[in-house]
Amino acid sequence: MKFRTIEWKNNRVVMLDQRLLPGEEIYQTYSTYQEVAEAIKTMVIRGAPAIGVAGAMGLALGAQSIKGEQKKSFLSKLEKIAEEINSTRPTAVNLSWGLNRMMALAKNHPAENGEALTHVLIEEVKKMVLEDIEINHMMGNHGAALITNGDHVLTHCNAGALATAGFGTALGVLYAAWAKGVRFDVYADETRPFLQGARLTAWELSKNDIPVTVITDSMAGWLMKKKLITKVIVGADRIAANGDVANKIGTYSVALLAKHHNIPFYVAAPLSTIDLSTPSGNEIPIEERPQREVTHVGQTQLTPEAVKIRNPAFDVTPNELVAAIITEKGIAKAPYTTTLKAFYNQS
Amino acid sequence: MKFRTIEWKNNRVVMLDQRLLPGEEIYQTYSTYQEVAEAIKTMVIRGAPAIGVAGAMGLALGAQSIKGEQKKSFLSKLEKIAEEINSTRPTAVNLSWGLNRMMALAKNHPAENGEALTHVLIEEVKKMVLEDIEINHMMGNHGAALITNGDHVLTHCNAGALATAGFGTALGVLYAAWAKGVRFDVYADETRPFLQGARLTAWELSKNDIPVTVITDSMAGWLMKKKLITKVIVGADRIAANGDVANKIGTYSVALLAKHHNIPFYVAAPLSTIDLSTPSGNEIPIEERPQREVTHVGQTQLTPEAVKIRNPAFDVTPNELVAAIITEKGIAKAPYTTTLKAFYNQS
Repeated sequence: MKFRTIEWKNNRVVMLDQRLLPGEEIYQTYSTYQEVAEAIKTMVIRGAPAIGVAGAMGLALGAQSIKGEQKKSFLSKLEKIAEEINSTRPTAVNLSWGLNRMMALAKNHPAENGEALTHVLIEEVKKMVLEDIEINHMMGNHGAALITNGDHVLTHCNAGALATAGFGTALGVLYAAWAKGVRFDVYADETRPFLQGARLTAWELSKNDIPVTVITDSMAGWLMKKKLITKVIVGADRIAANGDVANKIGTYSVALLAKHHNIPFYVAAPLSTIDLSTPSGNEIPIEERPQREVTHVGQTQLTPEAVKIRNPAFDVTPNELVAAIITEKGIAKAPYTTTLKAFYNQS
Repeated sequence: MKFRTIEWKNNRVVMLDQRLLPGEEIYQTYSTYQEVAEAIKTMVIRGAPAIGVAGAMGLALGAQSIKGEQKKSFLSKLEKIAEEINSTRPTAVNLSWGLNRMMALAKNHPAENGEALTHVLIEEVKKMVLEDIEINHMMGNHGAALITNGDHVLTHCNAGALATAGFGTALGVLYAAWAKGVRFDVYADETRPFLQGARLTAWELSKNDIPVTVITDSMAGWLMKKKLITKVIVGADRIAANGDVANKIGTYSVALLAKHHNIPFYVAAPLSTIDLSTPSGNEIPIEERPQREVTHVGQTQLTPEAVKIRNPAFDVTPNELVAAIITEKGIAKAPYTTTLKAFYNQS
């Protein structure tokens, strides 16, 4: 990739500020966990795998700030910091996955004081970045087989290098297919209100020379009817044990429209997004985000004062609309309750 | 209504500039047909019935500019002006309907010179405004019976007072129901790219004290799944003889989503929108509008340079997704080929 989404550098966290893309490519540096929590909340960084890594890095910054503490007090303070970071965004399970992994490591590690544990946690976040990228490549290799020459692939939101530590989930599959010589083009839903498709997916695909056409979310159904879309691939923020998929608002509509037009709808996500402790989509909390995301674009106010606004950031696509779930362990098909669990048992 | 969409005033055309709403309520005055054609093209005014009236008023301005001509030369020049105005927007049939009506009147009228014919045409456009408002009220009275207490009504784009000479088609039905004491609330799809829902529908409903919630287009399917929407009502730009409905891009998706969730999908449109000479939706031309509508909101550029954009302004909803078509003659149900023709034969 010609950019870095998130990096641990000189004991600080560096993130590409995704709010400013595609206009400006600005890297922000954070030295406290509170700043990282705020960056996650305000979507400097977004995308389930990316905020998993960002949360863990935030916790490593938190550890640095309390590294003078005795082990017991260090762990107890670290736990509070983890809770604070975890409260920033409720839907993507990767955030708690990353924090839980860090907390479990700290609790079970033999190191005897805060300083030593902080060192361990910092090494862990560096490892998580490399692992995430590797997992994306494995997912890409599995999923590439689903993409064929001449495909017109619709994607919703951004599940690319910008949504991960690098490479991407749904877009990782496309990058892998392209690298194997498969030739296709991509339609990117603009993905209101935050415009991840128009701003981020279009940016990273065009930076990687993959042909991309931006459409408004309202156009996808019509293009399907006109047979201009042959496949759909998206990422996920949380996948329940039964294969129900929480992803960016609008995904459910896309999946239903795809089903009606006999277009396969694929989801690409690492095991860290699959939450076997959540039985179905009904139990996934859906974040409601600030109204301003809907009422304004830049400084332009779109809506009149005094009207109500809804801004659920995610929806749930029932498993029966999902043709396959692409993970680093391979491609799962229905019945997902069995196939997803089997991948977990392998790991 | 607390505003006037379009008016013939002192031999000029006055329009509320819908590009500036909801921020500013500015009325523009036009004294040439070229200015009116440009206003239609750039969407100072939009909505099928409104551009039908605007086109006719443009032609009346054109008539004024050639009123010194002899009858034959007057009619031949008027025909060319009508063609020029008609070329501004291809999908809504009301534009050619309004122009054809004016041309037929001029051709068949006994008046013997341009001056007298111009007077006749100006009287005609004043009549068209009153007729359009009356037709909207008739439609409203028929359609109001379909709306019940506690309904949550989704609408897409703007088919209100702003889309007509006054009162509205789809929103006219809601205004009529409200006036009869029925209590409900409205969800307005923001309707990208031109944001007619967020800007115009929200503005006129809230001005009329009807509770309205703005959502992004991508949210409608999810709200249907959560049973938060009980009915859908939209306008139309052209209805084919078989009941296929061309309307704002995204309408097809909304109709399909509504069908899946067993939510009735209603269309409200005057007979002037029903084009019996177009057998089905396949023959309706779909306007592709400028890319800038998708790439920018105000001065903010959303997409990176060098990516492709699609901007079809309309789509076609097949008749099987339409629960009923509300007209000034009553409510048509399938088979539309028979029921729509019957309304025409009554008139």
